[in-house]
Amino acid sequence: MDNIKRTPIVILNFKTYMESTGKNALKLAMASEMVAEETGVNMVIAPQSPDIYFLSKEVKIPVFAQHVDAVDAGGHTGSTLIECVKEAGAEGCLVNHSEQRMKLADIDVVVKKVAEKDMVSVLCTNNIETSAAASTLEPPELIGSGIPVSKAEPEIVEGTVDIIHQINPKISVLCGAGISTGEDMKAAMDLGAEGVLLASGIIMAKDPKEALLNLVSKI
Amino acid sequence: MDNIKRTPIVILNFKTYMESTGKNALKLAMASEMVAEETGVNMVIAPQSPDIYFLSKEVKIPVFAQHVDAVDAGGHTGSTLIECVKEAGAEGCLVNHSEQRMKLADIDVVVKKVAEKDMVSVLCTNNIETSAAASTLEPPELIGSGIPVSKAEPEIVEGTVDIIHQINPKISVLCGAGISTGEDMKAAMDLGAEGVLLASGIIMAKDPKEALLNLVSKI
Amino acid sequence: MDNIKRTPIVILNFKTYMESTGKNALKLAMASEMVAEETGVNMVIAPQSPDIYFLSKEVKIPVFAQHVDAVDAGGHTGSTLIECVKEAGAEGCLVNHSEQRMKLADIDVVVKKVAEKDMVSVLCTNNIETSAAASTLEPPELIGSGIPVSKAEPEIVEGTVDIIHQINPKISVLCGAGISTGEDMKAAMDLGAEGVLLASGIIMAKDPKEALLNLVSKI
Amino acid sequence: MDNIKRTPIVILNFKTYMESTGKNALKLAMASEMVAEETGVNMVIAPQSPDIYFLSKEVKIPVFAQHVDAVDAGGHTGSTLIECVKEAGAEGCLVNHSEQRMKLADIDVVVKKVAEKDMVSVLCTNNIETSAAASTLEPPELIGSGIPVSKAEPEIVEGTVDIIHQINPKISVLCGAGISTGEDMKAAMDLGAEGVLLASGIIMAKDPKEALLNLVSKI
Repeated sequence: MDNIKRTPIVILNFKTYMESTGKNALKLAMASEMVAEETGVNMVIAPQSPDIYFLSKEVKIPVFAQHVDAVDAGGHTGSTLIECVKEAGAEGCLVNHSEQRMKLADIDVVVKKVAEKDMVSVLCTNNIETSAAASTLEPPELIGSGIPVSKAEPEIVEGTVDIIHQINPKISVLCGAGISTGEDMKAAMDLGAEGVLLASGIIMAKDPKEALLNLVSKI
Repeated sequence: MDNIKRTPIVILNFKTYMESTGKNALKLAMASEMVAEETGVNMVIAPQSPDIYFLSKEVKIPVFAQHVDAVDAGGHTGSTLIECVKEAGAEGCLVNHSEQRMKLADIDVVVKKVAEKDMVSVLCTNNIETSAAASTLEPPELIGSGIPVSKAEPEIVEGTVDIIHQINPKISVLCGAGISTGEDMKAAMDLGAEGVLLASGIIMAKDPKEALLNLVSKI
Repeated sequence: MDNIKRTPIVILNFKTYMESTGKNALKLAMASEMVAEETGVNMVIAPQSPDIYFLSKEVKIPVFAQHVDAVDAGGHTGSTLIECVKEAGAEGCLVNHSEQRMKLADIDVVVKKVAEKDMVSVLCTNNIETSAAASTLEPPELIGSGIPVSKAEPEIVEGTVDIIHQINPKISVLCGAGISTGEDMKAAMDLGAEGVLLASGIIMAKDPKEALLNLVSKI
Repeated sequence: MDNIKRTPIVILNFKTYMESTGKNALKLAMASEMVAEETGVNMVIAPQSPDIYFLSKEVKIPVFAQHVDAVDAGGHTGSTLIECVKEAGAEGCLVNHSEQRMKLADIDVVVKKVAEKDMVSVLCTNNIETSAAASTLEPPELIGSGIPVSKAEPEIVEGTVDIIHQINPKISVLCGAGISTGEDMKAAMDLGAEGVLLASGIIMAKDPKEALLNLVSKI
């Protein structure tokens, strides 16, 4: 698992764009893999759950699920077990993404389940307070802060990193918003982040590989 | 698509049991395929979404999703598009299962999306009133009524079939509860149902193939 | 109850604006009552649930709840029973408003509960298909269609009224969107609607009473 | 506000029982008030939101809401603003009750809103981890731990109190489960709790006042 959470880490969240679904997901996965090979950056992809299986067979970089449900095995039609995404090839999981906010009690259940399976959780938060709360749970390996990296308020990113490390220094903090250029990525790293979460900026780029290369060029 | 919704139809909902996840899902899928071949019954399997891709490669019987989200392509982390499950190999989708109840407006969105993709929807309902409401929407091919087949109140099943056919005679009605033996299945068919939805009774059976064979033995 | 659903009916949904909360809710309720008295229009107000009790004591026009939960009496902290809003003075209830969409199964439960209590339900829908579905349930007295009244597509409003009346001629249809002037209201009535659902246009008006009077001036 | 959160504090959650709705809510509120007067215990009642207004007029003990929504003033039909329950007479609010679990981001929003209004929040949690997470947010005055007081595992209650006080010593911890006798209540206080959350055991008691008196008799 140490290898999976090696920093700097760049997680490409495929979300649910047509440009990142099925065959298009494969193209994006291959571009991500090439960037990982060419730059040494730890590239991770997070596709929709039906695409996890074949993408994890096609590329060597880690594949994460975008979400798993806080349910135990049983009668939960339409839910997805952590065991299922793991067997399909996922090595980690986003938790509580801003587009899939979860109840506090369910976040607690899922980060424990992910840890039990020796997988990596990326717990997403939206401000300093929820980042601190997230740090007190079964330690997620990564916290994906939704605080935008901006020149205007760098202290908020630093403050978030500080409070998280104060509670648990082993947690790596990712910047999950406002990253669109190599300068943004460098700024995030300079403020204490150890990686970033990306999505539409890369997915919708004319040349996603070039966009990714540009992004990691300054670190 | 006509072949996919051929009746009598038996849909095995894999839900989220360990016995129906990953490699175990494959065993269950193969047992279902053998029963289809031996009996001519239209067997359909509905696994968790990460298992759709490889199961649809391994067996020839139709694979349905257990649920898709009422979202368009875009930023919806953790959701699953109908386009994604289709490209993964699904030919249909359960909608509004009792363990995944949906908002009326979302049911409307999803049955339209499934129809646009020439896939089969199985719209699950819980009583006569919601079955009638379901029949007025973009016609789902199949309505999976949650009304139990019991000797005590056969008229409720008949009444449901009647009201659905009155609104739209092309919709086939499945019985989605209380089916555990060949007699139950025969009773459902005698009351006007054209198939059944099964789950734990088969999944947890010592010999799922035998259990399925027993179930379809009387029709 | 006949008096409560007398048409033309104008329902003012207070939503959760500061301008329609607490003491401000009282001002708005009194303005609505004056308009009812001056024009003979059946004015109904739908405040937040903590305001139902005192508003129903202060004004004689009917007070509706904005929502009740599909739960039976029991352990459901934070929910509100239909029995509770009735005892507080509510004579009806909005159901499935676009800002509070409900599961199909829950809509079915709530319209039945409202009917059992001899109260009036206003079931809100978002298009022709969901309006038809709504009409097949325990008949709500009123369906609040979210289809905007526009000069461009009057046939959609008419089509909605037609399909609802075809399924159940006793249901009155209200227009729930796009009503901001007396002309809009008249257009809605000419297309077969028997009333309207209003909100921010009146709540945020400089003079809500004047705005209401203007609105009903053409019918 | 100091008076409102005076300990020992006993909060009676009315939930949504018929026995605690409307006129019955008034009886229960008056019984609670008598117990407060006779014993000096800080009794608080938490009725359904339509009952807040008249109960807060009828009794002098504090009235709390069972839940408020994490929304700002605006178009949120069916939601309830903190401003609305405050104007109706509530002096505090339960947050994230086990029957009304909230998203982490929403809990953060609501505890901040409650604090801004100088009201008391009772943030409910379900284990040590979520209690710790709750303590890092805008400090709620009270944390209602759902950990049952049992003779078998007293250390879990103590551990919860300890970790909460380690993070923020000003937070009072309430026991929210397993309290049915005076002995249970005494045990909870001995383990570091400063009060309890009660519900059906009192609401459904033949004589709620007697049941309450018995409960506080040992402290």
